Amino acid sequence: MSLLNEILEKIKPLNEEMMKISKERVDFLLKPVGSLGVLEEIAVQLSGITGEMYPDVSKKAVLVFVGDHGVFEEGVAAAPQEVTGLMANMTVAGKSGVGALSKQAGADVFVCDVGMVSDVDPKSGILMKKIRKGTSNMRKGPAMTYEEAKLSIEVGIDFAERAIKNGYNILGTGEVGISNTTPSAAIFAVLGDVDPGELTGAGANLSEEKMVHKAQVIRDAIAVNKPDKKDAIDVLAKVGGFEIGAMAGAMLAGAASKIPVVIDGFISTAAAAIAIGLKPEVKGYLICSHASAEKGAAFGSAFIGATPFLNMGMRLGEGSGAAIAFNIIEGALYMNREMATYGDVGLGVV
Amino acid sequence: MSLLNEILEKIKPLNEEMMKISKERVDFLLKPVGSLGVLEEIAVQLSGITGEMYPDVSKKAVLVFVGDHGVFEEGVAAAPQEVTGLMANMTVAGKSGVGALSKQAGADVFVCDVGMVSDVDPKSGILMKKIRKGTSNMRKGPAMTYEEAKLSIEVGIDFAERAIKNGYNILGTGEVGISNTTPSAAIFAVLGDVDPGELTGAGANLSEEKMVHKAQVIRDAIAVNKPDKKDAIDVLAKVGGFEIGAMAGAMLAGAASKIPVVIDGFISTAAAAIAIGLKPEVKGYLICSHASAEKGAAFGSAFIGATPFLNMGMRLGEGSGAAIAFNIIEGALYMNREMATYGDVGLGVV
Repeated sequence: MSLLNEILEKIKPLNEEMMKISKERVDFLLKPVGSLGVLEEIAVQLSGITGEMYPDVSKKAVLVFVGDHGVFEEGVAAAPQEVTGLMANMTVAGKSGVGALSKQAGADVFVCDVGMVSDVDPKSGILMKKIRKGTSNMRKGPAMTYEEAKLSIEVGIDFAERAIKNGYNILGTGEVGISNTTPSAAIFAVLGDVDPGELTGAGANLSEEKMVHKAQVIRDAIAVNKPDKKDAIDVLAKVGGFEIGAMAGAMLAGAASKIPVVIDGFISTAAAAIAIGLKPEVKGYLICSHASAEKGAAFGSAFIGATPFLNMGMRLGEGSGAAIAFNIIEGALYMNREMATYGDVGLGVV
Repeated sequence: MSLLNEILEKIKPLNEEMMKISKERVDFLLKPVGSLGVLEEIAVQLSGITGEMYPDVSKKAVLVFVGDHGVFEEGVAAAPQEVTGLMANMTVAGKSGVGALSKQAGADVFVCDVGMVSDVDPKSGILMKKIRKGTSNMRKGPAMTYEEAKLSIEVGIDFAERAIKNGYNILGTGEVGISNTTPSAAIFAVLGDVDPGELTGAGANLSEEKMVHKAQVIRDAIAVNKPDKKDAIDVLAKVGGFEIGAMAGAMLAGAASKIPVVIDGFISTAAAAIAIGLKPEVKGYLICSHASAEKGAAFGSAFIGATPFLNMGMRLGEGSGAAIAFNIIEGALYMNREMATYGDVGLGVV
């Protein structure tokens, strides 16, 4: 059995019994019922994920997958392609957005090359799992083969499992890949059956004119490839990206190991849609962090049924939103574990 | 000169020159311009507040002011009045919502009694600055005298100054006071010239029927007292509360000492409106944390011109939202200080 199938079989629904017990405690905490909103939901979800009332989520890692995209040659990106490699190096050095924010959050950042154009410096600390130097141009044919798509997911599974074996108990997903809002919009256009124009945004500050072009490129890619929306791997292969597949894999691995996975913005959400397409139960293990300002992001979050709780107007990607969400998620645990209950003080619930 | 007047004179506009320099750096950081959204705004604001490019905001304190309200006797609250005292004690013990969340956030919590009905246990760690045991019933006359209103602000100034002298470099405001959504809604009804029905919410899970009654109580209080909306102290005295005045004072003291003050939900925002009414420049020193689910909160935030960035559906108060915002605010500093710039890597800005 392949690694992917093994992982898919391991993923079980959330522990409903533990969620019920946790919810009872949350409602009995010394506060008006419901008054801590999303923190209450997260506390219950963490119990459902881990099967524990007070799971440890203090060892935090952001897994950043990097890859390039053949569709870049269609002029859909504002930055040159070598920026992917540059940002990968900056991230392991702690000098990118996610690097800086993770330092503050007490999270470690790990970078994995799934298929960027740039070569990896073996001394950089970036894990080399390059499938090849960038996907193919999806406007002309599939971005990757079906086997490559599966492999990209397995790279993500493997990377997440390394982190989990090293004791990390909450993961965030991040990515760097110049032009990867294009495959992300394509994935949602296919899965959600909407015109790419509704999902195509500025990415890294693309001009209005180029956005119109970008939407047409996605329309063409879908027309040329005819992805089967019932087969998430087919969608990933035809209009996705290596780092998107890898993020989906990391989510699956987290779910299989009963570890919460914090998803970042638009591209992470596209990866989540692929992961959920492969195994709907993975959804319960995901915590959606921030509402990205990228145009398609609101559609993407709604599509996977997630409600982001950070409204920061961010659209950087890299896992930056996941990094700043970690401590709020751990706050939900502290709420559940540290607060007194109405029982403790001999009062009735308000 | 009174302490209040001294503080008001000390408050200066933000350091525009430092904000300009900080903004230049933020725009030169290795990310698409604007792509870290609110974090970018906060980084620039922190520079404007402190006059420093990379101000230390690592020593975090939530100042929780507690007080009771004469209007409680009109049946506007879901919980009994002794809960104020109970929650004050639970907060110093780290067992309330803000207590638990502050532990996770690495923030210290300090509690000051400005006028609750319950007696303070001298060994509790609560600072005793009781003006009197609860305000008067504002439906029948002013909640407090003009002098008491000023005194409540000065209690807040004094408490904040103690924290600042002890090295805290970022403050959050919080409160406990059963029925204090009623004076908060009254303050915004007066200052914003809107019917209380538009601002009156469930507080701690009040029934629909009692909310209608609560709005009428506020209408009556305004009709009886005729607060002068051009005089913030008059508004505070007639339809406010001791802990609301004290929070306003803490904001003023933070601004006078060039320290950022994180405001929490609806009641903190009402206090901010009073502080801004006394000195408009204080606004620049405030960072609005979360969008409370309490009905009038969106109006309140808009009224003071603030945009909350946490969308957690919370409505507990106590400073709980300020607590979970601290690390995100410090994240903005890390972004500015730790990220590489385009200059560092020899690239042009995207």
